[in-house]
Amino acid sequence: MNQKEMTGNQNSWDNLLADFPKGPLSRYRKKASFNWKEMAVFIDGEDIIQLKNRVFSALENDPLFAHHPGEDLCREKYQELTFLRCKRLFEYEFLTPQEIMEQPFRVFNMMSFLGMYDCSLCLQFFLHCTIFAGPIMSAYEKFAHILEQTYRMEIFGCFALTELSHGTNTKGLRTTATFDPSTQIRDTKTLLPMPGVMVGDIGEKLGLNGYDNGFAMFHNVRIPKENILSITGDVTAEGKYSSSIKEVKERFSAALGSLSTGRITITGLSTAILKLALTIAIRFSAARCQFGPAEDEEIPVLEYQTQQWRLLPYLAAAYALDYLSKSLFGNFVEFYAGVLTKQRSQRQADLGREIHALSAASKPLASWTAQQAAQECREACGGHGYLAMNRLGEIRNDNDPNCTYEGDNNVLLQQTSNYLMSWMNCIRDKAPFESPLGTINFLQDYHHILGWKFTATSIEDCMDSSVPLAAYKWLVCYLLRESYLKMNKEKQAGRSDFEAKNNSQVYYCRSLALAFIEQTALQRYHDYTHDPSVPAALQPVLRYLSALYGLWSLSKHLAVLYQGGYASGEQPGKFIQDAILELCYRLKDDAVALVDVFAPSDFILNSPIGKASGEIYKNIWGEILQGNKALNRPSWWAEFCSNKPVIGRLRSRL
Amino acid sequence: MNQKEMTGNQNSWDNLLADFPKGPLSRYRKKASFNWKEMAVFIDGEDIIQLKNRVFSALENDPLFAHHPGEDLCREKYQELTFLRCKRLFEYEFLTPQEIMEQPFRVFNMMSFLGMYDCSLCLQFFLHCTIFAGPIMSAYEKFAHILEQTYRMEIFGCFALTELSHGTNTKGLRTTATFDPSTQIRDTKTLLPMPGVMVGDIGEKLGLNGYDNGFAMFHNVRIPKENILSITGDVTAEGKYSSSIKEVKERFSAALGSLSTGRITITGLSTAILKLALTIAIRFSAARCQFGPAEDEEIPVLEYQTQQWRLLPYLAAAYALDYLSKSLFGNFVEFYAGVLTKQRSQRQADLGREIHALSAASKPLASWTAQQAAQECREACGGHGYLAMNRLGEIRNDNDPNCTYEGDNNVLLQQTSNYLMSWMNCIRDKAPFESPLGTINFLQDYHHILGWKFTATSIEDCMDSSVPLAAYKWLVCYLLRESYLKMNKEKQAGRSDFEAKNNSQVYYCRSLALAFIEQTALQRYHDYTHDPSVPAALQPVLRYLSALYGLWSLSKHLAVLYQGGYASGEQPGKFIQDAILELCYRLKDDAVALVDVFAPSDFILNSPIGKASGEIYKNIWGEILQGNKALNRPSWWAEFCSNKPVIGRLRSRL
Repeated sequence: MNQKEMTGNQNSWDNLLADFPKGPLSRYRKKASFNWKEMAVFIDGEDIIQLKNRVFSALENDPLFAHHPGEDLCREKYQELTFLRCKRLFEYEFLTPQEIMEQPFRVFNMMSFLGMYDCSLCLQFFLHCTIFAGPIMSAYEKFAHILEQTYRMEIFGCFALTELSHGTNTKGLRTTATFDPSTQIRDTKTLLPMPGVMVGDIGEKLGLNGYDNGFAMFHNVRIPKENILSITGDVTAEGKYSSSIKEVKERFSAALGSLSTGRITITGLSTAILKLALTIAIRFSAARCQFGPAEDEEIPVLEYQTQQWRLLPYLAAAYALDYLSKSLFGNFVEFYAGVLTKQRSQRQADLGREIHALSAASKPLASWTAQQAAQECREACGGHGYLAMNRLGEIRNDNDPNCTYEGDNNVLLQQTSNYLMSWMNCIRDKAPFESPLGTINFLQDYHHILGWKFTATSIEDCMDSSVPLAAYKWLVCYLLRESYLKMNKEKQAGRSDFEAKNNSQVYYCRSLALAFIEQTALQRYHDYTHDPSVPAALQPVLRYLSALYGLWSLSKHLAVLYQGGYASGEQPGKFIQDAILELCYRLKDDAVALVDVFAPSDFILNSPIGKASGEIYKNIWGEILQGNKALNRPSWWAEFCSNKPVIGRLRSRL
Repeated sequence: MNQKEMTGNQNSWDNLLADFPKGPLSRYRKKASFNWKEMAVFIDGEDIIQLKNRVFSALENDPLFAHHPGEDLCREKYQELTFLRCKRLFEYEFLTPQEIMEQPFRVFNMMSFLGMYDCSLCLQFFLHCTIFAGPIMSAYEKFAHILEQTYRMEIFGCFALTELSHGTNTKGLRTTATFDPSTQIRDTKTLLPMPGVMVGDIGEKLGLNGYDNGFAMFHNVRIPKENILSITGDVTAEGKYSSSIKEVKERFSAALGSLSTGRITITGLSTAILKLALTIAIRFSAARCQFGPAEDEEIPVLEYQTQQWRLLPYLAAAYALDYLSKSLFGNFVEFYAGVLTKQRSQRQADLGREIHALSAASKPLASWTAQQAAQECREACGGHGYLAMNRLGEIRNDNDPNCTYEGDNNVLLQQTSNYLMSWMNCIRDKAPFESPLGTINFLQDYHHILGWKFTATSIEDCMDSSVPLAAYKWLVCYLLRESYLKMNKEKQAGRSDFEAKNNSQVYYCRSLALAFIEQTALQRYHDYTHDPSVPAALQPVLRYLSALYGLWSLSKHLAVLYQGGYASGEQPGKFIQDAILELCYRLKDDAVALVDVFAPSDFILNSPIGKASGEIYKNIWGEILQGNKALNRPSWWAEFCSNKPVIGRLRSRL
């Protein structure tokens, strides 16, 4: 996207991006093979970096956004603060409605910036502006006044999606859950519930506690017909349902369309969270010394092969998923333009299906990667990672629901495998086919690809992502064939379609969907990093990242490569493993600079061990002393000193 | 251990264990292939079940241990409550000092019972009674009065182990961190710090916040020489260090000995946490219905292959690790008896090394399994799992430090691989060897085992744990050979021992240590479940659990089985995968009864979706309404209704 943009020169980079303070991390920064500012400008472009600087410094300079180290912020206060901050965002108006329409990429980036500051705030702001306002915007003629009120924050959206006993099974909902663009639920003057409506708080969650989730019960509540959104359906004067989309199934897919935005957005948000976790863990690992070749010499833990292997593949994943999420958003913008202009072409329908299949797998891939990375980063920082102040817990907890909402990851993956299986007829009949974005076009060579073998003959051969990419193409074809055969076998054994599908998930359809989205992510990142327009100084490190992401992802499918005969003998496995370790080794001196590229400012990162200076002990120590009554004896000290227990006093009661 | 104990009859079981309330889970309970009470008595024995009942009902009946649903308990209050509860435990004196000495298994079980109630309380109580009191006990002659005070809770132990910049590298500590059995740190009357000592709180952690972690800085503090523990070393009148153990390395291992207790204890605690998570997720999955074969029929999510595959292997792991941890504790009791009686035999030394190697790997295995299971259970319960009230977050957060303290898991595993590598000389020279517990005796057949192949020819063949067990023996031998070759190759390339070892961890020594402990766990559980004394009615389900644990663990090493030539072609992988799915299917109707066996009482479990009745919606709903101001409008409502933001007011400041 920004590939062909000029990346400028040292002067322009220095104006955009400040140098980091000298400290324990300087030695790694000096060893980097590239200029981190050039990389940042290449990846994001000057415009987005300026927006990022503007947002981050506005938050840092506004006391309302200040952190409260050592303070035990209760849930109610946190929610109040989040609400006030959300209001303040409307006052900053970082993006005007016109900018949003003209430069949707800015909105996508804004979401990452806010997510890096606080996920609760990010969700509150964006669920209001996109999930709530989005469908209203689609029915603009009818609800222009509501949209105005939304953007002016005169009303605040709530989104009633599920029932207590229904989540992922949206078809099975028993009530008509609907958007509420009127004063349905609470009185706008007093915020007390309207008659017949019971609303409440569902209680503390594992994370995202700044964001208030509630329940709503409706008992014979009358909603004027005018308030139905009517994007895909409406109610006639006689009370009958009518729809502009005739086919039931098609209507259902179109209604779920607005959730595709959500899945791509979550792909991006998970990637932002992944970057936060890695910034903290890699800077810590470069500053923290432990053990060494001699008694009196300790070396940074980043020098250890195990630590490199734990963290650097996730760093590569952060780069590859960043590109995947942005390119998917680009695809979605194209699709959505068609929705707004009411295109009914075959291409528009195909594009919708393809994006649905991609986003239904990119969300699981990104959210799981972030989840595993957050846990690995937490552990890689040892006890320091377990201290709340260092933020890895919050990061893990706030990412966690990304695996669940907008569709449970495991269930969502079925959308993708269904899409892939739908091409089997064409493949079997050797009929020509292609998709608008071309992600499944390689399946045209299905029969040929199934004959491929692993051919690399050295570790050096594996240093390019073309090696794992070829293996992935074989893997997708193989799993597609196996899933298809398995499903047919189940049906031949007399099982219903429902049972046959359920029994073909594990090791088959589920693996297929994951392999396909990993392949897509790798294909896109491979193409991006191998484009001739990449500045020469950035090429080697970007290609290493692409190779590492590909090989490391592929290594989880290694058994299948052997099982299906793509690989045989000791060498393929060894080459892949040795190449992963070699790439980790080659990237270790670039690791700090690679996180510098995407790290937010110290204020936004809000983690003593993740600060740009690398002065981990000074930073922790400073924060500990901010602790509420950190040096006081506990208030209940007399319970220890005076009121001694009488040992066994209550034993007789047992 | 309890294997040969009579398991009694229905009457005696009913006296020990009450029936569960009727409800949505009844249908699964009726379908179980065995009597859960018989299983509980077979596994734990009447004595332990009575102790468990006594502890659980004492806590349930005492208001001090009551839960506070919907309350936002701040950290200071939680710590106060934990301290008061800890004191109360001394008043209950569930186990007398004499019982502790005579029946150490009761202590091990007590720890699990308390851990199931609250990990913070469990740690506070047991770190005081074991880690603090244990070494004092070993130096009993000198500190009998301190031990008395400890058990009477007149003093309360603190354990100063690490430095700010040193964790796992215990050899590199710069200060002499030491136990404090005197009034060193705070004045016993006022609890204010003594001169020269600065103590404080390190702040909020991701979990375990009822347990107070602090820091202590010593500036020229004088500690009377009499207060040094002198188990393995002492200071002469002239101030010189002397030790009864002459060899430096041996002295160091002996000093670390008291930490082996910790590792076995954590193995048990992680297993208890694993049981909690599974109780919640499996009961939820059996009660929660979603989708179905027809529009109007929804089926429990436990009926889905994917859900079975996500949860049931962890259920098998809970059973296998429960047995592993208890049998390891039994080994440790034998070893510790030798320590207390000051045995200096070769067998005692060998036993120490073997237990060290086992516990250094069992802790990583159990803590990681619990961590992954807690995450999987959280996700498997969807949004309900993300609600704090259902406790999966607390479970995950409280288990998390088990991966870190008492040695980072990845670093600890090196102790185990070092131990295994130390046998290579005997293997190479074909000299006879064996270990006191026999865990490495199969390495005598190393050369022979390396020639083994996968021989099962059907899924039914794989239904017994002997199949994965044979594969594991080959795997350990193969990884041992590969690690040995890799290390030598590194040395021949001119690398120092330090570098050579570091570069042989990933895919080699690390995999070796994990494969070895999994093999040991499986071997022990295989023997246990195949013993002729197992009641006939329990045999089938126990053997399925053993087979499932073995195959599922093995499946993560499948690529290595192919790489090393143990398996080839499509079939071995398919058999293993299909057998895992078939075992999950066969165990699904037993799953509820299998968690009933180890589930604590509803009060202790403290999770609305995990309650024995399975009335998940009623329980959640009841708990939501307990929420602090659940139905109130937020206190900051006027911020929404009156103080509307002026859109873009601050934009000019950007």
